[in-house]
Amino acid sequence: MIKHALSVTRDADFAQWYQTVIAEADMAEESGVRGCMVIRPWGYGIWERMQRLLDDKIKQLGYDNCYFPLFIPLSYFEKEAEHVDGFAKEMAVVTHHRLVGDGKGRLVPDPEAKLEEPLVVRPTSETVIGTAFARWVQSWRDLPVQINQWANVVRWEMRTRMFLRTTEFLWQEGHSAHASAEEARTRTMDALEIYRSFAEDCAALPVIAGEKPENERFPGAVATYSIEAMMQDGKALQAGTSHFLGTNFAEAQNIRFQNDAGELEYANTISWGMSTRMIGGLIMTHGDDDGLRVPPRVAPWPVVIVPMLRDSEEDAAIVDYCRALQGELTKRSALGEPVRALLDLKPAKAANKRWGWVKKGAPIVIEVGGRDVAAGNVSVLRRDRLYREDGKLDSAILARDAFLDGVAATLEDIQTNLYAQAKARLHANIARVDDWAGVEAMFAESVEKPGWADVAWCRPTGEALDQVVERLKALKLTIRNAPMDQGAADTACVFTGALAVERVLIGRAY
Amino acid sequence: MIKHALSVTRDADFAQWYQTVIAEADMAEESGVRGCMVIRPWGYGIWERMQRLLDDKIKQLGYDNCYFPLFIPLSYFEKEAEHVDGFAKEMAVVTHHRLVGDGKGRLVPDPEAKLEEPLVVRPTSETVIGTAFARWVQSWRDLPVQINQWANVVRWEMRTRMFLRTTEFLWQEGHSAHASAEEARTRTMDALEIYRSFAEDCAALPVIAGEKPENERFPGAVATYSIEAMMQDGKALQAGTSHFLGTNFAEAQNIRFQNDAGELEYANTISWGMSTRMIGGLIMTHGDDDGLRVPPRVAPWPVVIVPMLRDSEEDAAIVDYCRALQGELTKRSALGEPVRALLDLKPAKAANKRWGWVKKGAPIVIEVGGRDVAAGNVSVLRRDRLYREDGKLDSAILARDAFLDGVAATLEDIQTNLYAQAKARLHANIARVDDWAGVEAMFAESVEKPGWADVAWCRPTGEALDQVVERLKALKLTIRNAPMDQGAADTACVFTGALAVERVLIGRAY
Repeated sequence: MIKHALSVTRDADFAQWYQTVIAEADMAEESGVRGCMVIRPWGYGIWERMQRLLDDKIKQLGYDNCYFPLFIPLSYFEKEAEHVDGFAKEMAVVTHHRLVGDGKGRLVPDPEAKLEEPLVVRPTSETVIGTAFARWVQSWRDLPVQINQWANVVRWEMRTRMFLRTTEFLWQEGHSAHASAEEARTRTMDALEIYRSFAEDCAALPVIAGEKPENERFPGAVATYSIEAMMQDGKALQAGTSHFLGTNFAEAQNIRFQNDAGELEYANTISWGMSTRMIGGLIMTHGDDDGLRVPPRVAPWPVVIVPMLRDSEEDAAIVDYCRALQGELTKRSALGEPVRALLDLKPAKAANKRWGWVKKGAPIVIEVGGRDVAAGNVSVLRRDRLYREDGKLDSAILARDAFLDGVAATLEDIQTNLYAQAKARLHANIARVDDWAGVEAMFAESVEKPGWADVAWCRPTGEALDQVVERLKALKLTIRNAPMDQGAADTACVFTGALAVERVLIGRAY
Repeated sequence: MIKHALSVTRDADFAQWYQTVIAEADMAEESGVRGCMVIRPWGYGIWERMQRLLDDKIKQLGYDNCYFPLFIPLSYFEKEAEHVDGFAKEMAVVTHHRLVGDGKGRLVPDPEAKLEEPLVVRPTSETVIGTAFARWVQSWRDLPVQINQWANVVRWEMRTRMFLRTTEFLWQEGHSAHASAEEARTRTMDALEIYRSFAEDCAALPVIAGEKPENERFPGAVATYSIEAMMQDGKALQAGTSHFLGTNFAEAQNIRFQNDAGELEYANTISWGMSTRMIGGLIMTHGDDDGLRVPPRVAPWPVVIVPMLRDSEEDAAIVDYCRALQGELTKRSALGEPVRALLDLKPAKAANKRWGWVKKGAPIVIEVGGRDVAAGNVSVLRRDRLYREDGKLDSAILARDAFLDGVAATLEDIQTNLYAQAKARLHANIARVDDWAGVEAMFAESVEKPGWADVAWCRPTGEALDQVVERLKALKLTIRNAPMDQGAADTACVFTGALAVERVLIGRAY
């Protein structure tokens, strides 16, 4: 039996395994501030790679980066009733702008410095960005306005979990205003497609893109779309959302323009966001019992070189050899970018460093000892196939030049392989279910990792929808989305028996 | 006489001119939220360029990016007395985590959701990062710990000015812990050198690097160093600071390590920061009466191509020609990077677009009309030399290939030229002054743009320093810094007549 690097396996306790990966891979830790985490270099490095790759796509779509205030006056929220209802219960509120001594050696908010109007720490920026749009948009010539913001946002969560649900998190939010509903709807779908391609091509996360049911819409939206990824425990992770807001926010914020006939019209707005939650998805999709496995595209260092030093005379030659190797790697391209290679010279034992990088999930770990230098070789460990069939580490000794010639293909293969593994799992764990009894059976308490059910429904609204939501809730289920590009549904609704109009995916979720 | 693009000149009203540049170059605007601005795409694009260039230098220095919480519990601040004294008067305080209806249709902070311990919105992160360092550092093997954070911070300012002094601003803060005071001091100076080289080589801002006097130190620091840039009105702008904190924060936060003799020692820590304030410095250094001039290295688009379209049949050929030109530019390198060239296809008159880019300060603006296409030419406007001697726009018609062959040299020349202009001004406006009467004369009310005085002083402390500070304050002056690498001062102190120990620069400042 293989002795794995982590103290807990996915099968034994998935939630504990998740926390262990984060700790052992030095990704993040509790900060001591309620619900807020410290994102450490390996975790933040993955986020920086995600930012870089997603930002390129956002700019290609014609959105410009801007920055809007962290604080939003309460009155801005009150304009859109549904929106404020959706967020009021989780908003951090700034009420004072100064501290003062209490005479007992402690500091307290200065009563003399109480704000006339409390400020909300942004949970999302529709209200403050819409207010700017109202200033910027006068005529049809000013449209579309398309902006994006990389920022921190705060939603006061009662139960938090690192990366997945934290009081403060990092994200990007795209916002735009358009002259017609049609154009706005098209852009809503363009943003969803960016998320799909980023998730699949960069993060190697296969996803299902689709429309959220009415009860899961963003507060104030006309329609909300999501990409949903499947974690190894069968649960869903909503990994990005795109909202068509119609004229709801434009009416609340007076975003109006003169059309070419000279008439005043409300603009149609949209918004879309993806966050550090994606890192949680990466862990729960690609991680194994030895730690994280990072797809090369989003790995801060797709190649890590570990010199096997022994405090001996040979060491200098080994380091020189490694440095030359690093230089050669950097000259090569893989997956459309120069290869990023780290030479790990930290003062620690080579074996500990190797296992450290395995737990962090560096795609390729190179080890170089004195014998390798003498023979012109390198020892290569591929993180996506760590063990041989006999359970031993699959460390391959390759001639240095052969390794260099093949490194691009190897990195591409790792990227493809991680995606293929996750994609096979996704499809193997979606089951078509035709009636409610089938749903109950699939999600019975005795069933482990039930995955998702693919069911037909009649898309009820109002009270009928509430009843569906309650029935699902009893099984701890939610409707994830109605996948795009599906054919007509001509069977019976799994909830009501009425004629179905579309198929939806239901499952447990993070 | 030249009719300039802005409605107000630097000479007529420098403060008004500054606001006008920001507005006319679409860099930023008031947000409606007190003291907070909206940074628009051109302003944010410059910040993104600055981030990219400075981040490379930070990583080369061996600092890793991390992310720490926005909120800091009040108790963290209370541990370092000087530090909290320095910031208590300008801290935004979160006291509630939920809103609730007041029964009259308005929302108010929910009294039931009052925090037990108020949270401060970070004004700087020494306290929360030091707490993490205390967890991470056990042995001398764990040192140094070197991390950097790009983040927003909040300091409640009573009088705000866009980019220069805003309630919320964006910055990077480097933090590290070291085994010895010597190593920490070396790193403090390394960070200062990064700032100097970034300011001079990237932003084309000549600066004086030096040590701040005791009264201007960061709250809790043993020594503070700064780079000071001179604005066109002669005032100083502190453009980056680096602090040696000694063991002050380590003692407050218990950052201790076992040295190789097995004894417990406090670590020495440092911190250093540079912010969006730098953009204000860019405007006031390089701007002219036609708007901003952005040095090519930090320009989002060093080359902008404006097709002169007339809603005619010719338009398609002009756009094709421009697109091919853009493609050719992108293949070339200048200043160590591929050339970034924008093709401006917005629906507006070509002349308005040209002046828009002049006001924004794009280094090179290319105009292409039907005649240029026919002749294989381009019309080239260099933003650093906008007018000919006769006062007309200096738009040069060049053969397309000659322009392409020379574009790298031209961009490098613009970068060098902007730096040289600013450097000449800096040195022309520093005057060596030998006695207090000379200082009073230099900074008399009748003197316009007095620049800085370079004076010798005896570096008084305590009450003697307070008296010096008061005398300077009466003339609206502060000590900027004591420049590095100065020879021994063997003259009399300008304030006391005692033997001087060093020279300092004094001036008015933003």
